[in-house]
Amino acid sequence: MSSQKLNVCLSPQLISSYADENSIIVVIDVLRATSAICTALHNGAEKIIPVVDVRVARDYLNKGYIVGAERNGEIVEGFEYGNSPLVFAGEHVAGKTIVLTTSNGTYALAAAQMAHQVIVGSFLNLDAVSGWLENQERDIVLLCAGWKQKFNMEDTLFAGAVVSQLQAANRVLALSDSAIAAEILYTKAKDNMFAFLENTSHRNRLRTMNIEEDVRYCLTPNTTSVIPMLENGNIVKMNE
Amino acid sequence: MSSQKLNVCLSPQLISSYADENSIIVVIDVLRATSAICTALHNGAEKIIPVVDVRVARDYLNKGYIVGAERNGEIVEGFEYGNSPLVFAGEHVAGKTIVLTTSNGTYALAAAQMAHQVIVGSFLNLDAVSGWLENQERDIVLLCAGWKQKFNMEDTLFAGAVVSQLQAANRVLALSDSAIAAEILYTKAKDNMFAFLENTSHRNRLRTMNIEEDVRYCLTPNTTSVIPMLENGNIVKMNE
Repeated sequence: MSSQKLNVCLSPQLISSYADENSIIVVIDVLRATSAICTALHNGAEKIIPVVDVRVARDYLNKGYIVGAERNGEIVEGFEYGNSPLVFAGEHVAGKTIVLTTSNGTYALAAAQMAHQVIVGSFLNLDAVSGWLENQERDIVLLCAGWKQKFNMEDTLFAGAVVSQLQAANRVLALSDSAIAAEILYTKAKDNMFAFLENTSHRNRLRTMNIEEDVRYCLTPNTTSVIPMLENGNIVKMNE
Repeated sequence: MSSQKLNVCLSPQLISSYADENSIIVVIDVLRATSAICTALHNGAEKIIPVVDVRVARDYLNKGYIVGAERNGEIVEGFEYGNSPLVFAGEHVAGKTIVLTTSNGTYALAAAQMAHQVIVGSFLNLDAVSGWLENQERDIVLLCAGWKQKFNMEDTLFAGAVVSQLQAANRVLALSDSAIAAEILYTKAKDNMFAFLENTSHRNRLRTMNIEEDVRYCLTPNTTSVIPMLENGNIVKMNE
């Protein structure tokens, strides 16, 4: 049995039970923070500063930064952008520093900071993340941002997709029960994730906000090979 | 859409995100605390006093109580019983008060105490628990004790079994994502849970302890109609 562990942590609140300073953590917030981060870096943003506090985000806004601020799925009042990835998919972000605060994703990033290395995953960079993980020796924790500390389906499906790819690559890993569960859920959902997620909580939440286009975008695999990584508190593109 | 919620909470550490003083909580620790509790009450034990601290359990032991004390799957040194349900399956428990402290189950019971009502579930009383829940109006939280705050498979499968039965009974409930996930896992596992759990973490842990018999016992559904409930800090049989 391998001593290298592949864990899935289903809520940021549980991270200290799964990870320590030797771990690699993949932060996952498919709808929509980590999809937005992948999109911004793919479009040439220089870095992303994740902040937990909206007041800090407002300070950056006042200094002229591009700022995304989302709470409960909505753009925070006074900001131009929320966490929709589509608004970061253009030349206007090239070379820029972007500041981001979201309900769950930036909290998960903060919770992950103690790890040896933190990268950011979404379906948009699934193959890139899985391929990079294949060559790592450390214990891996796939951290689902969830929704306000609760389990959510879409982040778990992405975690399951990574487990599935690492298994397919014949990586010998000790899977946690949560990793086994995530892979089973992904296997059931993968042929039509959009339909599978139809009745889940966050999809319902987002449906009422009329952002179907965002959801379809976020569920599209492998539109970028960018791997965002945390470095000194900022998120930058890993060198290829 | 129903306003009555059916939630699955996958770790006691997350309970405050799922439940409040109006909730019904079902505490689940299939291997083995809640199976032991069902067994003891089925065999006529008058009540069970769950205690979190081993030192408190030792005080009771010194006073002559029947005490089960388990940590990390093993009987705590100085105690005769751990959390194996088989030792509570006899006439020697009839009319007695039993004190129990375990790694995860008694912690989950403590975490659940703020709820309106707390009952105890295991495969042994699956139909009884589901049948009783069918007639409740309050929000329901199926609380998986897990393993040291982590997700575990066997508790999630039981939660999924309850979700499945409530759905089959045409109860209209708003399912959390975790409830949907638990039901999918249970549906996949139900035809051979013993084999399904073969490679999961806690089964592996228990296998090295040579307690296959316990596991098979704990996975046998509906051997009792007893519903244990928390009352003033003790666990007693609900009146039928």
